[in-house]
Amino acid sequence: MNTPPIGTGAVNALIDLALAEDIGPGDITTDHLIAPGVAGRGYVTAKEPLVIAGLEVARVVFQRLDGGIRFEPFFADGDKISGGDRVLAVTGPLGALLTAERTALNFLQRLSGIATCVRGYVEALGSRPVRLVDTRKTAPGWRVLEKYAVRVGGAHNHRFGLYDGVLIKDNHIAAIGGISRAVGKIRSSVSHLVRIEVEVADLEQVKEALAMKVDVIMLDNMALEQIREAVALIDGQALVEVSGGVTLEALGRLADTGVDLISVGALTHAARSVDLSMQIMPV
Amino acid sequence: MNTPPIGTGAVNALIDLALAEDIGPGDITTDHLIAPGVAGRGYVTAKEPLVIAGLEVARVVFQRLDGGIRFEPFFADGDKISGGDRVLAVTGPLGALLTAERTALNFLQRLSGIATCVRGYVEALGSRPVRLVDTRKTAPGWRVLEKYAVRVGGAHNHRFGLYDGVLIKDNHIAAIGGISRAVGKIRSSVSHLVRIEVEVADLEQVKEALAMKVDVIMLDNMALEQIREAVALIDGQALVEVSGGVTLEALGRLADTGVDLISVGALTHAARSVDLSMQIMPV
Amino acid sequence: MNTPPIGTGAVNALIDLALAEDIGPGDITTDHLIAPGVAGRGYVTAKEPLVIAGLEVARVVFQRLDGGIRFEPFFADGDKISGGDRVLAVTGPLGALLTAERTALNFLQRLSGIATCVRGYVEALGSRPVRLVDTRKTAPGWRVLEKYAVRVGGAHNHRFGLYDGVLIKDNHIAAIGGISRAVGKIRSSVSHLVRIEVEVADLEQVKEALAMKVDVIMLDNMALEQIREAVALIDGQALVEVSGGVTLEALGRLADTGVDLISVGALTHAARSVDLSMQIMPV
Amino acid sequence: MNTPPIGTGAVNALIDLALAEDIGPGDITTDHLIAPGVAGRGYVTAKEPLVIAGLEVARVVFQRLDGGIRFEPFFADGDKISGGDRVLAVTGPLGALLTAERTALNFLQRLSGIATCVRGYVEALGSRPVRLVDTRKTAPGWRVLEKYAVRVGGAHNHRFGLYDGVLIKDNHIAAIGGISRAVGKIRSSVSHLVRIEVEVADLEQVKEALAMKVDVIMLDNMALEQIREAVALIDGQALVEVSGGVTLEALGRLADTGVDLISVGALTHAARSVDLSMQIMPV
Amino acid sequence: MNTPPIGTGAVNALIDLALAEDIGPGDITTDHLIAPGVAGRGYVTAKEPLVIAGLEVARVVFQRLDGGIRFEPFFADGDKISGGDRVLAVTGPLGALLTAERTALNFLQRLSGIATCVRGYVEALGSRPVRLVDTRKTAPGWRVLEKYAVRVGGAHNHRFGLYDGVLIKDNHIAAIGGISRAVGKIRSSVSHLVRIEVEVADLEQVKEALAMKVDVIMLDNMALEQIREAVALIDGQALVEVSGGVTLEALGRLADTGVDLISVGALTHAARSVDLSMQIMPV
Amino acid sequence: MNTPPIGTGAVNALIDLALAEDIGPGDITTDHLIAPGVAGRGYVTAKEPLVIAGLEVARVVFQRLDGGIRFEPFFADGDKISGGDRVLAVTGPLGALLTAERTALNFLQRLSGIATCVRGYVEALGSRPVRLVDTRKTAPGWRVLEKYAVRVGGAHNHRFGLYDGVLIKDNHIAAIGGISRAVGKIRSSVSHLVRIEVEVADLEQVKEALAMKVDVIMLDNMALEQIREAVALIDGQALVEVSGGVTLEALGRLADTGVDLISVGALTHAARSVDLSMQIMPV
Repeated sequence: MNTPPIGTGAVNALIDLALAEDIGPGDITTDHLIAPGVAGRGYVTAKEPLVIAGLEVARVVFQRLDGGIRFEPFFADGDKISGGDRVLAVTGPLGALLTAERTALNFLQRLSGIATCVRGYVEALGSRPVRLVDTRKTAPGWRVLEKYAVRVGGAHNHRFGLYDGVLIKDNHIAAIGGISRAVGKIRSSVSHLVRIEVEVADLEQVKEALAMKVDVIMLDNMALEQIREAVALIDGQALVEVSGGVTLEALGRLADTGVDLISVGALTHAARSVDLSMQIMPV
Repeated sequence: MNTPPIGTGAVNALIDLALAEDIGPGDITTDHLIAPGVAGRGYVTAKEPLVIAGLEVARVVFQRLDGGIRFEPFFADGDKISGGDRVLAVTGPLGALLTAERTALNFLQRLSGIATCVRGYVEALGSRPVRLVDTRKTAPGWRVLEKYAVRVGGAHNHRFGLYDGVLIKDNHIAAIGGISRAVGKIRSSVSHLVRIEVEVADLEQVKEALAMKVDVIMLDNMALEQIREAVALIDGQALVEVSGGVTLEALGRLADTGVDLISVGALTHAARSVDLSMQIMPV
Repeated sequence: MNTPPIGTGAVNALIDLALAEDIGPGDITTDHLIAPGVAGRGYVTAKEPLVIAGLEVARVVFQRLDGGIRFEPFFADGDKISGGDRVLAVTGPLGALLTAERTALNFLQRLSGIATCVRGYVEALGSRPVRLVDTRKTAPGWRVLEKYAVRVGGAHNHRFGLYDGVLIKDNHIAAIGGISRAVGKIRSSVSHLVRIEVEVADLEQVKEALAMKVDVIMLDNMALEQIREAVALIDGQALVEVSGGVTLEALGRLADTGVDLISVGALTHAARSVDLSMQIMPV
Repeated sequence: MNTPPIGTGAVNALIDLALAEDIGPGDITTDHLIAPGVAGRGYVTAKEPLVIAGLEVARVVFQRLDGGIRFEPFFADGDKISGGDRVLAVTGPLGALLTAERTALNFLQRLSGIATCVRGYVEALGSRPVRLVDTRKTAPGWRVLEKYAVRVGGAHNHRFGLYDGVLIKDNHIAAIGGISRAVGKIRSSVSHLVRIEVEVADLEQVKEALAMKVDVIMLDNMALEQIREAVALIDGQALVEVSGGVTLEALGRLADTGVDLISVGALTHAARSVDLSMQIMPV
Repeated sequence: MNTPPIGTGAVNALIDLALAEDIGPGDITTDHLIAPGVAGRGYVTAKEPLVIAGLEVARVVFQRLDGGIRFEPFFADGDKISGGDRVLAVTGPLGALLTAERTALNFLQRLSGIATCVRGYVEALGSRPVRLVDTRKTAPGWRVLEKYAVRVGGAHNHRFGLYDGVLIKDNHIAAIGGISRAVGKIRSSVSHLVRIEVEVADLEQVKEALAMKVDVIMLDNMALEQIREAVALIDGQALVEVSGGVTLEALGRLADTGVDLISVGALTHAARSVDLSMQIMPV
Repeated sequence: MNTPPIGTGAVNALIDLALAEDIGPGDITTDHLIAPGVAGRGYVTAKEPLVIAGLEVARVVFQRLDGGIRFEPFFADGDKISGGDRVLAVTGPLGALLTAERTALNFLQRLSGIATCVRGYVEALGSRPVRLVDTRKTAPGWRVLEKYAVRVGGAHNHRFGLYDGVLIKDNHIAAIGGISRAVGKIRSSVSHLVRIEVEVADLEQVKEALAMKVDVIMLDNMALEQIREAVALIDGQALVEVSGGVTLEALGRLADTGVDLISVGALTHAARSVDLSMQIMPV
């Protein structure tokens, strides 16, 4: 599992923001208590079962405080960890460890929370031949990291932004005056390396999309029966995605309709952080 | 309710990051479909009951896309909104509205999610004379905004970072060798405008903290009975904060022990986004 | 033709860099000669026939110097302009016009140079049913703008970066050990909204790519005869792109082989700036 | 030949922009194909004769992806390289090499293109006692790098921006009402370490500039005969620069008029990128 | 004495600005004179008695130019240094040492100037039980560094900004309509970890502040006699700060009134830089 | 008097830093006391005689907080202002005025402090035909603004940085092995628009510099008699600058030696801030 670009670009900028917002002009508790030369060691421990994600981000956070901090993960991103297990160790200047602690934990807790949530959905799907995908409902500034946590959890990514895939939604269709016109217009101009997906609300629109030979059809908030009809109608001529208010319980039934993709905004926008704690001591 | 600084500093930087990560080199769907001169109007609608927060951020997001977009909120931050209510209207270039939609909604959904979650805790407390406060367990990069949403929800802020309050935690005490030594050392050097809070694990530590005349004592993960004893022991000589795994059900019982502050990490790290949608059409 | 995002993100950053590198601590000629209150007007004139591109960028450059500058274009991006024609007028503080002149012209000259070069290729192709596309051989920092100029010129964009399309090149195939393995691995994990293109060097590789049902096959530096054979072999099962050392003279012959796309790095990396000048005077 | 400041300031910012625009949220081809631990080696090869420039920039680009990449140049900036020669080797993580390839090549191709173009002009001048200089007609954001490539090619730099030399142009003279007034005003206030150059259009202006004892006189778009008269008139009292539409063929004749400097915008704005390729393989 | 965060956040940004403003597109003297491979050594020498401050900043400045520069301080921040003493040595590329010299010295001279000025005030106070504190009258952009130099000099910091302490000033009181209303309003909402200080102009206001149980009372520009009355009135119920035009001569008399804190804007806004020089030579 | 570029580049970045360091996550006093809708007016008053500088910077600071603030200066930069005079008025949201106050004043106080200090030197020189110039001993990050304040005060600028003038100093001469070698080397390569200045320590070096026809000779820390000899020796063949420990008293005597330029580091590094205050009230 390759990590996303962390040391450059948007993730790098988010890490800078995160450290600046927590440290500001200085950690007045640590700076006044801990002398510069004192060495320390810290352990991050899982307080509940979880799927770990974000170890490389945590490493960068600690080493941004002090380039000499040694970072030893005992697991890899994607591993399941039991409550009570030690996740990683850090060794270096005691003051730097104490100052970096909360920011590093906040990244790990949120990303592992998403990976853990995603894993639950993935296991609920079992071996069914369907792809679980995320959405663009991510915390602003966190897109690259949250989509990485989704992959760590075992699901797939939908497009990353407005630039790496065409998704013609209800608002576009209303504005342009129909699916046919929208698809025709965009196919003549958009890059040949991105596919065209269209959001449809009923079977009439499914037919219109099929007639335009779109690559993917998104069935938006349809009832189970309607989804089955749509799948039959499409019959392999396009990929079929279902979207809208998908719950963990409904997942199996949805998958069994024969759709190709199920997108779930809750993977990112409703995942709660998992509980990790850190013990730090002088050595 | 004053909004935090949005157009400068850290929030401004987060908005830039958010727009760049979603738009990147361009919104290929909208740019190819909607001609530059077409005007549009959009409405944001609540899909469930919620406490709205982040209207000013949404305004800045839309107007960053096009300075001429008119933004009309129908409510103010902190208002309770019923499912189905229209929250705000935007009017301006149709393409800009479509491109800004997801980023604006993502900010609103997350901040309103926190405010709604907080409001639930606040109402559970009722008129009890206790302060509900947040923690530093926020999404990295979002500290200022999430703490604002906590205030919108009706709770209070704990310190914003490592710089605006002294909090001597277990790791500090272990490193420096005891509460007395830690408090003595820091009192002689830290600014006279910040208070000193100490995290304690048992009644012995409570006594040690009292002897050092600290301003605030944080009872960490204590049982209800132990909290009552601590409150009796402290007897108004310091503010008393309880912390650690506070649930909505336990809130009333905790408050009735006579503590001054209850801090709840879940206000920010476990709040799920609320559901808001947007309809956009040409005008 | 929609302009790319100029006021935010990467283009905004490039404009900041551009103004800073030219003005630095101040325009010592203009600042010492022109008093603050003097108003001026300037005209940009084409010194040769050209296709104009970048008017919005020029507008932002001038108004970054002074928000009150009035910018009046006499043409729109994509228009053919004769040598001697006036392209635009600016009115505002004389000092600001003089200071912004060179940066605004440098943007216009380079982008119009690309658009003009592209238009030449497009006209050489005439009505042949083939798409002329650009490459990633752009001036670092200029990707979004140069790809916009390509569209203004009348050609299409290939992918914008490493993130919005899969292109498995010779180096990848060598590293992973064959086309089949590469395509299989990537299809199972990459987003369903991006297509998979494979670069091939001979007909054996064309067959391997076809067997893997890739979306696009890039014939790299093949001879005309070999291209014809490849097109016959592929026979509509995938889009066919030719690439590598395409000259303006060879364009027609290449198009007549029946390929779908012809990519030309020279559209961006070999275009020379066109000649524009500016006259500025007090009013 | 000292390289310009690369790791700080404007060049550093351009490198960040360049990597971000190409990689964005991730190199989806490489990330999905190449496992993190695989090592690789790559060679950059010249596909045509060229003067190499930008090796240090390429080194920084590769090492920004991974600090452990070893960069071994086989030549130094300014060396002439034959088509087919290997220019440099890089060794390190295979994925990082593949991801950095295009950005590194794009910098090298453009800078070497300028250096190669400049070298052609320099050789055309031979041993004539005249200075070939560049202009401010550079790609916005690239000023420092392009002017470095001009030095690598063997020519000299004119001023870097509006801040390190006074150049009173036709627009200034028109605005201020004559050369005498302009020179008098600026001499009394500008730093004693920058020289004053004036652009003139005819012999009358030459005389006026001489009377004001300017340091450099720029003959703008004058005919050969007129230039000879101007040189005779100036007779060593000021440096003489010719400017405007200088072609490679006209260079010798211009130099033989006895002018001190010939400025050529085409050195930067009309140079095409040279052809370099890269082979990368696992090791 | 812990240094403030230097490699991240605001100080890091100031160092970037400082190097960019001095070096710009390049150090034309050094770059043209010193070949890349030449090694050098430099010594910074005190030209007058001083208290040194800012050594870590100087280290970062030199190593930003070249990561391989060895930095050896002969003293620690806070040490008194005699005129003529060598303060530190740097060893590395000669060109980088020459280019970094002025920026490194400018940081050291200003910060040591403040530390030296502060030390004078501290010594004038002797063992009197009063705290000498700074103000927010610092050079914009320098807040964190100047407040660090104040600590190095031996005094204490007042709040760092508008966010880490409440200070209700005359303008606030006038706007809100009295001390009682202001204190009541703010106490109900502000974090429990910051104290409330009120600026008062006469004894009536002292009484009003006392009645509101504020934490700190600032006596603004009061005469000595009035200060004594205020101290008697307050009688330990709040900390007492005096402020406004405090001179070195008045310091002892002020301290002897029994106040707790004396704030002096001149510590930062009137300190002159001390004289340091640097000798650099090839080795 | 033209202001330097404020809204873009380095000064813009410094203003952002300044507001962020003072406001951080929010002005907790003002935000909790002043309701969003309340309007206010403020006046800045001089508390001592001074030369005002930095009005445009103050305007930008206020309007960065709220674009609708009206800024009315009663004087122009460079005007002498008596103690007690009102300098400017601002009208707008009361909260924004209170929050911006200190940052705006800190800019004005420092820049006016420098302008006032410079004016004192300028008046001491009277009508003597000599140029008073500054140095690079400025507060890091403030170069452009401090050099502007020097011009406002009535003196001239030396070079702005290492890039807009050649100054061969003792360290360079020692490294390269003599003035002749250094000047010869640099003249052959540096831009024809910058002059060459050499720092000399004795008359031998003056002769060597004259022989090399340098443009400016800086007499470093020479005694008055030696300066007179040097001026006689140079006799108009180069400009003569004296430098090093120049005091206000010595100024006249130095000027009377016939030198062309006197450079004084104290203009910037020893100027104290002047006293300005602000009254703000609701309207």
